[in-house]
Amino acid sequence: MSTVGSPVLLLAPLYPPTQAELEAGYRVVRLWEAADAGAQLDAIAADCRVAVTHSGRGIDRATIERLPRLELVANFGVGVDAIDLDACRSRGIAVTNTPDVLTEDVADLALALLLAAVRRIPQGDRFVREGRWAKGPMGLTQSLQRRKVGIVGLGRIGAAIARRCAAFNTELGYFGPRRKAGVDYRYFDDIVALAGWADVLVAACPGGPDTAKLVSRAALEALGAEGVFVNIARGSVVDQPALVELLVAGRLGAAGLDVFDDEPNVPPELFALENVTLQPHQGSATHPTRAAMGRLVLDNVAAWAAGRPLATPV
Amino acid sequence: MSTVGSPVLLLAPLYPPTQAELEAGYRVVRLWEAADAGAQLDAIAADCRVAVTHSGRGIDRATIERLPRLELVANFGVGVDAIDLDACRSRGIAVTNTPDVLTEDVADLALALLLAAVRRIPQGDRFVREGRWAKGPMGLTQSLQRRKVGIVGLGRIGAAIARRCAAFNTELGYFGPRRKAGVDYRYFDDIVALAGWADVLVAACPGGPDTAKLVSRAALEALGAEGVFVNIARGSVVDQPALVELLVAGRLGAAGLDVFDDEPNVPPELFALENVTLQPHQGSATHPTRAAMGRLVLDNVAAWAAGRPLATPV
Repeated sequence: MSTVGSPVLLLAPLYPPTQAELEAGYRVVRLWEAADAGAQLDAIAADCRVAVTHSGRGIDRATIERLPRLELVANFGVGVDAIDLDACRSRGIAVTNTPDVLTEDVADLALALLLAAVRRIPQGDRFVREGRWAKGPMGLTQSLQRRKVGIVGLGRIGAAIARRCAAFNTELGYFGPRRKAGVDYRYFDDIVALAGWADVLVAACPGGPDTAKLVSRAALEALGAEGVFVNIARGSVVDQPALVELLVAGRLGAAGLDVFDDEPNVPPELFALENVTLQPHQGSATHPTRAAMGRLVLDNVAAWAAGRPLATPV
Repeated sequence: MSTVGSPVLLLAPLYPPTQAELEAGYRVVRLWEAADAGAQLDAIAADCRVAVTHSGRGIDRATIERLPRLELVANFGVGVDAIDLDACRSRGIAVTNTPDVLTEDVADLALALLLAAVRRIPQGDRFVREGRWAKGPMGLTQSLQRRKVGIVGLGRIGAAIARRCAAFNTELGYFGPRRKAGVDYRYFDDIVALAGWADVLVAACPGGPDTAKLVSRAALEALGAEGVFVNIARGSVVDQPALVELLVAGRLGAAGLDVFDDEPNVPPELFALENVTLQPHQGSATHPTRAAMGRLVLDNVAAWAAGRPLATPV
């Protein structure tokens, strides 16, 4: 392959089998191991044409600017909100991601969090483990049946969540920039209106500046003291300080959160709450899905190297 | 109503609104409050024709024999395994339960437990709360996608679980006394064969002597170290000592358990395990479902009192 001599910049560790295969095929420079990252970038600037990263790491404008010959940023993950897309666009740098292969696992995790919140699974688990059941019953919970589920962002993942919710006899609504053709779920052009209508609000939109704090304090207040909020999208899409404050105050009923601002840091106020289920960004963190994501990254790099069309350009 | 003077024996407390409505319409004798239960039964034996109980309490042969004029046992719950059905049958005593109204909530809980087990939700929650995420990622889990789910007992609840599982792109199989007409899930006439085929085994059959330890040690061993067992049926349907032993030894992968032998007592060996989710028999424990169950109990007692056909005879 003509590019073997050209270094591939790897910004962060990947799923190990993917990284191993990348390193078997290319001369990979591990940026996170460099004592001086700037010097490392300067050393490869003359012939580095490919950078590989993941959604949690991305690549910023400063790094892109130090690589004048960069042609491709191949991202491990569907979310490209940590990649400076404007910088890539202005330079004509192609960006690829890993859509579709992670949709179903992320949607499964959303349902796990939704069911845990509505049926109070973490509370029930602690009730049994702490020996409280012997002293009397736990009491009743809400039901998911006939409840209204509002989905923020009816893209691939949002639609996969909706399909699952339909099997649970829920009523479905969604918010997004526009009404989707051929979808008969109830459309809201205002997120506060969706949250006021919904019993459960699920964030499934992309991250990035366009959706920053889209799930606003007003939306969470409209969801209310019996409402459930689930986030498998990005921490940035919700007003996290408001979310924490309303949960602590009992003005939001429950939450299931896989994503946070400033991961892996999580607001410690959440640790003491019984009515939240917390996950360390596990949406796509399954063996088969990570393998499939890795395959797409490798396919995109190989397509670029061979001059073929990219498998999954953004 | 002609029966107002005739005492209704209530064996255990019910959902409070149901009990209040029963006590508003009938002369209810609360057996659990009697200092001497035997004396209480003798005192009402001459004219007690109705007993009301719930699935956790039932009614045994000795109690039935002390009530020679008993005509109806109205049960709050679908499971009648704690009612001595032979004793009722031989005396011509009608038994009613509360089917259908709880099916969907119980199936929802089954999926909550299944997803929690496969995606390691309790482990993830503890991982975040204990501050471990800041030190590195949690690691990957299994996926539910394309996995094989085996359902033990494809009755109302089993079928509702299967419908939900289908929305998660799983492959479905089932065990039962006979192949169901019009069902295209894979049928197994042997539970060990089903467990060997399945990645996830969900018990959804009735309790009672016919299904005692149906999910045998051999079935759990066939499910194996990567297998997941979910039980929303009855503790009696699984070999509980074998279940605990295999979970502790890592020879069964994970479990989600809503029911146990000898509730509310739970084997304390389970309390320390990370790979189990425990619930205090919450299958139907939601506000709307308990209200609907209570309505059926009251309807059955009223139908009996008016000489009309019973709403939901067993």
